[in-house]
Amino acid sequence: MLIRRTEETSYQEMTMPGAKDVTMQLMLGREDQTPTFAMRQFQVQPQGHTPRHQHNYEHEAFILEGQGQIIGGIDGSTIRPIGPGDAIFIAANEMHQFRNTGTQVLRFLCLIPNSFDCGNACQPTPGS
Amino acid sequence: MLIRRTEETSYQEMTMPGAKDVTMQLMLGREDQTPTFAMRQFQVQPQGHTPRHQHNYEHEAFILEGQGQIIGGIDGSTIRPIGPGDAIFIAANEMHQFRNTGTQVLRFLCLIPNSFDCGNACQPTPGS
Repeated sequence: MLIRRTEETSYQEMTMPGAKDVTMQLMLGREDQTPTFAMRQFQVQPQGHTPRHQHNYEHEAFILEGQGQIIGGIDGSTIRPIGPGDAIFIAANEMHQFRNTGTQVLRFLCLIPNSFDCGNACQPTPGS
Repeated sequence: MLIRRTEETSYQEMTMPGAKDVTMQLMLGREDQTPTFAMRQFQVQPQGHTPRHQHNYEHEAFILEGQGQIIGGIDGSTIRPIGPGDAIFIAANEMHQFRNTGTQVLRFLCLIPNSFDCGNACQPTPGS
């Protein structure tokens, strides 16, 4: 059993192009010998956002605090409000972006599979 | 994209032997076409607990509110306090139990792989 406390977990600035004022904490990842999926905690500052992008693996997210919007859909044309208690599934290859539209931090969990592209040889998912 | 709001998601009483005052909300599961893992939200009332058991797949949990203990380790001999912001990894076949030791509800996410026992033919994980 492993317990990783939020207050003891280091923050990484999200430097990917298109990210603005986002940090990530890897709560449970491949290095912890998780066999299937990885748990990350994100904080987005007011007016900040994650990259608007897509990739060949899914996200499952859960909003912990704050208010925001999520951009989604195959072409990124869907915009919906998000707040605490919302669970979000973003399928592989869907365009997506999390935006903080509030005045407090937007904090959420975002989980990913450890591997993807398993049709050929599985690749480790970035950030897992 | 799917957004499932906590307040719109039905509760299921956990009727498994050994569970006491526990409800589960399936936030994202196999029926939502999640390919890899399932997200469930649990609420344990004061003095309540999940079953003390083990199984051949892992858990990744995140404590949302409340105070409790987790029983873990291969033989269930490890007892550690848990509270909001704690991420917990329970490996396959580890004994485990979540207990509410506080006076408020203990609420947490607990994620599982959609399939297990893939050495032979994968089986759908119960509760996914």
